[in-house]
Amino acid sequence: MLAAARATFAERGFDGATIRSIAAVAGVDPALVHHYFGTKDALFLAAVEAPVDPEELLPEVLAGGTAELGANVVRLFLRVWDGPTQAAGLAIFRSAVRNEWSARLLREFLVSRVMRRVVATLDVPPAEREARGALVASQLAGLVMARYVLRIEPLATASVDALVAAVGPTLQRYLTGEVALDGAGPGS
Amino acid sequence: MLAAARATFAERGFDGATIRSIAAVAGVDPALVHHYFGTKDALFLAAVEAPVDPEELLPEVLAGGTAELGANVVRLFLRVWDGPTQAAGLAIFRSAVRNEWSARLLREFLVSRVMRRVVATLDVPPAEREARGALVASQLAGLVMARYVLRIEPLATASVDALVAAVGPTLQRYLTGEVALDGAGPGS
Repeated sequence: MLAAARATFAERGFDGATIRSIAAVAGVDPALVHHYFGTKDALFLAAVEAPVDPEELLPEVLAGGTAELGANVVRLFLRVWDGPTQAAGLAIFRSAVRNEWSARLLREFLVSRVMRRVVATLDVPPAEREARGALVASQLAGLVMARYVLRIEPLATASVDALVAAVGPTLQRYLTGEVALDGAGPGS
Repeated sequence: MLAAARATFAERGFDGATIRSIAAVAGVDPALVHHYFGTKDALFLAAVEAPVDPEELLPEVLAGGTAELGANVVRLFLRVWDGPTQAAGLAIFRSAVRNEWSARLLREFLVSRVMRRVVATLDVPPAEREARGALVASQLAGLVMARYVLRIEPLATASVDALVAAVGPTLQRYLTGEVALDGAGPGS
């Protein structure tokens, strides 16, 4: 069932995949998928082997209000990555760089589970939300690459507080400042 | 000789490696290395299979002066990556994510060939230069990850002008704004 879920989420995206379509690929009854995994959300987290559920961290990110959103996203992101889940996170990162289908799954995870939830709380035009989320994702992915993969100093050993001060304003601007992107957009 | 150069640059870093030490590892006369590759710079570019020499692009990046540095770095970076060198660039990126020694080579390339040259032109305390360069590298690496690897929309299909407007100010702040990192620093 997890293999069927991975294939279906990668091919159709999180929104396009249904418990029914995944059950069909797996050759089982949809009720069985529901029984084992509950919701589509939970099945997706199991399929991508997510070490944490960003949904559970969301209240903490939002607790400081819009003005502290950038700083809080960086702080929580680093707490997760500096902790015991780093190895699992790096495994997902490496897999996404190596493999097109893993990249699609990670993209779906970032877009549907992380970015969309954070930008949904913002008072910005809905049309801008995907662009703001994508820019945030770009800086956070770069932080993973520079701090944990390439280990570029002094970024590799900098304290969380210093990184929050340096990178928080970047995310704050991406989330609430004057930014726009003109790509063909999702679904293209 | 290239294998010896890769091993030596990865182990000792660009600054620590010498033509003499590389020749010793390769078991050849240093004069032979000089004959084939000329300078240590040229040997390094050959060893990392760099598709472009950032040194050649530098005058264009600096042409607009300090005020336009962030925008010009993004513009030139995207021109290189959107062009025919993208495949070679992605191969290096993938290799660095997979392999610790390739990661060291890429880090040396970014630090010694790219970042150091750009930040050397800035009127900032020398102690801050590595931190500013590392932050710039983090956003650029994230751009590669989001635009070319994960292909997150609308970032994947956004125009260069839109990305320069969105990401340029981030680099400008990292290069000339109030930022500091407190890591143990290079060489730790």
